[in-house]
Amino acid sequence: MLSPSELARRRREVVAALTRAVPPHCVLARDEDTRPYECDGLSAYRQLPLVVVLPENEEQVVAIMAVCLALRVPLVPRGAGTGLAGGARPVADGIVLSTARLNRIVHLDPAARTAVVQPGVRNLAISDAAAPHGLYYAPDPSSQIACTIGGNVAENSGGVHCLKYGLTVHNVLRARVVTVDGQVLELGSEAPDVPGLDLLAVFIGSEGMLGIVTEVTVRLVPKPAVARVAMASFDDVVRGGGAVASVIAAGIIPAGLEMMDRTSIGMVEPFVRAGYDLEAAAILLCESDGSAEEVDEEIERMSAVLCAAGATAITVSATEAERLRLWSGRKNAFPAAGRISPDYYCMDGTIPRRELGRVLIGITEMAQRFGLRCANVFHAGDGNLHPLILFDANQPGEFERAEAFGAAILELCVAVGGTITGEHGVGVEKINSMCVQFSRAELDAFLSVKRAFDPEHLLNPDKVIPTLVRCAEYGKMHVRPGQQKFADLPRF
Amino acid sequence: MLSPSELARRRREVVAALTRAVPPHCVLARDEDTRPYECDGLSAYRQLPLVVVLPENEEQVVAIMAVCLALRVPLVPRGAGTGLAGGARPVADGIVLSTARLNRIVHLDPAARTAVVQPGVRNLAISDAAAPHGLYYAPDPSSQIACTIGGNVAENSGGVHCLKYGLTVHNVLRARVVTVDGQVLELGSEAPDVPGLDLLAVFIGSEGMLGIVTEVTVRLVPKPAVARVAMASFDDVVRGGGAVASVIAAGIIPAGLEMMDRTSIGMVEPFVRAGYDLEAAAILLCESDGSAEEVDEEIERMSAVLCAAGATAITVSATEAERLRLWSGRKNAFPAAGRISPDYYCMDGTIPRRELGRVLIGITEMAQRFGLRCANVFHAGDGNLHPLILFDANQPGEFERAEAFGAAILELCVAVGGTITGEHGVGVEKINSMCVQFSRAELDAFLSVKRAFDPEHLLNPDKVIPTLVRCAEYGKMHVRPGQQKFADLPRF
Repeated sequence: MLSPSELARRRREVVAALTRAVPPHCVLARDEDTRPYECDGLSAYRQLPLVVVLPENEEQVVAIMAVCLALRVPLVPRGAGTGLAGGARPVADGIVLSTARLNRIVHLDPAARTAVVQPGVRNLAISDAAAPHGLYYAPDPSSQIACTIGGNVAENSGGVHCLKYGLTVHNVLRARVVTVDGQVLELGSEAPDVPGLDLLAVFIGSEGMLGIVTEVTVRLVPKPAVARVAMASFDDVVRGGGAVASVIAAGIIPAGLEMMDRTSIGMVEPFVRAGYDLEAAAILLCESDGSAEEVDEEIERMSAVLCAAGATAITVSATEAERLRLWSGRKNAFPAAGRISPDYYCMDGTIPRRELGRVLIGITEMAQRFGLRCANVFHAGDGNLHPLILFDANQPGEFERAEAFGAAILELCVAVGGTITGEHGVGVEKINSMCVQFSRAELDAFLSVKRAFDPEHLLNPDKVIPTLVRCAEYGKMHVRPGQQKFADLPRF
Repeated sequence: MLSPSELARRRREVVAALTRAVPPHCVLARDEDTRPYECDGLSAYRQLPLVVVLPENEEQVVAIMAVCLALRVPLVPRGAGTGLAGGARPVADGIVLSTARLNRIVHLDPAARTAVVQPGVRNLAISDAAAPHGLYYAPDPSSQIACTIGGNVAENSGGVHCLKYGLTVHNVLRARVVTVDGQVLELGSEAPDVPGLDLLAVFIGSEGMLGIVTEVTVRLVPKPAVARVAMASFDDVVRGGGAVASVIAAGIIPAGLEMMDRTSIGMVEPFVRAGYDLEAAAILLCESDGSAEEVDEEIERMSAVLCAAGATAITVSATEAERLRLWSGRKNAFPAAGRISPDYYCMDGTIPRRELGRVLIGITEMAQRFGLRCANVFHAGDGNLHPLILFDANQPGEFERAEAFGAAILELCVAVGGTITGEHGVGVEKINSMCVQFSRAELDAFLSVKRAFDPEHLLNPDKVIPTLVRCAEYGKMHVRPGQQKFADLPRF
């Protein structure tokens, strides 16, 4: 920890070096200017950075890296700051590099169905630019109106449609990155496979720890002619979870397959009037897209499978307005939680689909144990849970109980063979849970690759990969999937 | 280079250590026993190894790694030895680790659609085991009857159907690997995303340089009810290449999209009587699979696109026998080449689809320049070329001309934005071409990741990643895509 006067001296030194590397208007150093960068979507963790720099081109990124390396100053890259795991939280003695001014769509090739964009381009802006050609960019995180492709690459973002269309890693063909030693690497290619090691896949999801992305080539896909959604009610969450498995087992890959439990339905319906079944223990939203004939046929097959799996009612959207209304409830689950609870904590674990029912019951039992409510909304098709733990930070101990509840949910996810994050990343939020997910040897492997790119740990330091000391302090053993720690967990 | 007596002493030392690590029957050291391991499918490069070891379980793999590390003896992993780039070529003072006895299907879960298999399980054996459940393993390299999943992981193998179903990396969910320091890592998961760095993707395609895979979890997919293939003739290769781009641009993702040029057709047809159009300058084989209705509809759309793109004739298979007959020509292209030429050299470059026509004309011009024939068969949908350079090694200089021709084709691939290998890997064969594909900084990045896992360069040394000295000796500059080196190349 530096003293305030040491920090001030350090700031002058870094600002001086940066203003030789980039134009002065690209450097922000006064507290009132750097305040907007003190946190990302995980606003419980705040920290003013030393300096914020907003490069306007790749050469400036290279020059900024040279400053970092020369002065040994840490650097935290930042997209739109919509991340939910604190991946863009600044460090007190470090630079925040914002990609906000690297916001140009460089090239869009409708025939090859690719777009070359700078990292600060918003996710939805790509689809907007591609729309006149009947194309769009498939991964659609709920923040897509604000979040940027650079942030999506850092977090390997998904969305409602990633069951059918894949995560960021499946939709990015190529990236240019600047490493901490100022090298520009071209990773990936428009060709289906690239020789050598697949470093593009390593960079995607690396949360800014390995380098700064300066250009991304994404795959565009044709906008489907039609989309319709079937909503199915279940009087039992386990039966609902079984229906998800049945849909997939029938060889159907829905464009979206989402589930909400009774708490979520009750929270959302009074807020948005989506037409949800308030009697149901769970509802499934099951979308089909494609040509009109394909969609009709698939909706028919889906409905048959859902019926056979025990659905008590099925509604199919007849118009686009009806489809959007059915989705509006799912999409507004988070604001709806804000209406009924002073605070909520959104988790992001994944589990094998077959474990859906068992894990939902486990979460219900934990809710009783921790004395907190929990609403479950999730990308059921992917097994990606988003339990919303409702609490009131003004009640003594509730925040701590919510954090402990969340950690217990993630441990359960790992125990049944899943993971501690589906699409939100690790950042600072889940760094302790990494000790549960991975063995010492696996964390060592991560650290050795991190060191290969950033030997001095200057890029987004102390995030994502816990040190072994930290795991020892957290006191958690690695949980091997299948080695059930929850002896009292119901089995089916 | 060790002298014969030094080699013999070294062999005794390594055999003694290995027979303490694994049962004696797992160690082969006599020349007559190690002879079958002296090369893989790239039989021009042969080398007897010091010792061959065939572990029977993961613990033995760990023990073998301990021997390697303690004695600093290099180790070359080997699957079925069907690789075409010399990735499994032994080193004189090193061990070959064959996965032949790690050949158990550990678990097959039809509901989750996954299979857990040991690395020595043959590709086709997975599909055979899954067949009673109506499932199969999608990647289908032409060697699938013999090649193993461990080798597929090492090379990130594709096949005729990878346009629709993806490469190995898209069909492997999880792998257990043993690193050179004897650590067992679990990479990936059955969940769609995994926190931390995507080391599974790095291992897939790493050609045995980072560790030994001891268990692989693969995704199984439902066997389509019906498959039909449309064969289209073109009187011009450029028009044929354009048709490939048109099919994809129309939003169709065929189960297979293959192209053969006039030389290939003329070579294959007398051999297999597949019913190919001997008048055509090129033919396309365009497959559709799915339900009967889907296939009928897609074949109709494909045919319309192919007609509009200038096809002079279209034949659609009416029966499964007809479909297999149409594919038999494509699948027998390599043996057909062996009938008309004493030797042939199969290349494996990829290019953006839009460059198909231009590159085919470039290859035709080169054939004249090098005075050699070249037959083009390829996975057109992926832009993955397999030019077969025909030559006679008994004619002085022809082998060298064939090698130079091959290198020139790969340089052309890189110049138009493609890569030097689509699915066969780099091995020893294409290590010089890596100097053309990648910049010094990119090769450095590969080397730093290699060092992170294998600091002493014991695993499959001197393959895949060229040293900077080697590139300097090869005298090739990195060719940036788009910076056309072929000034005389036709443009369209």
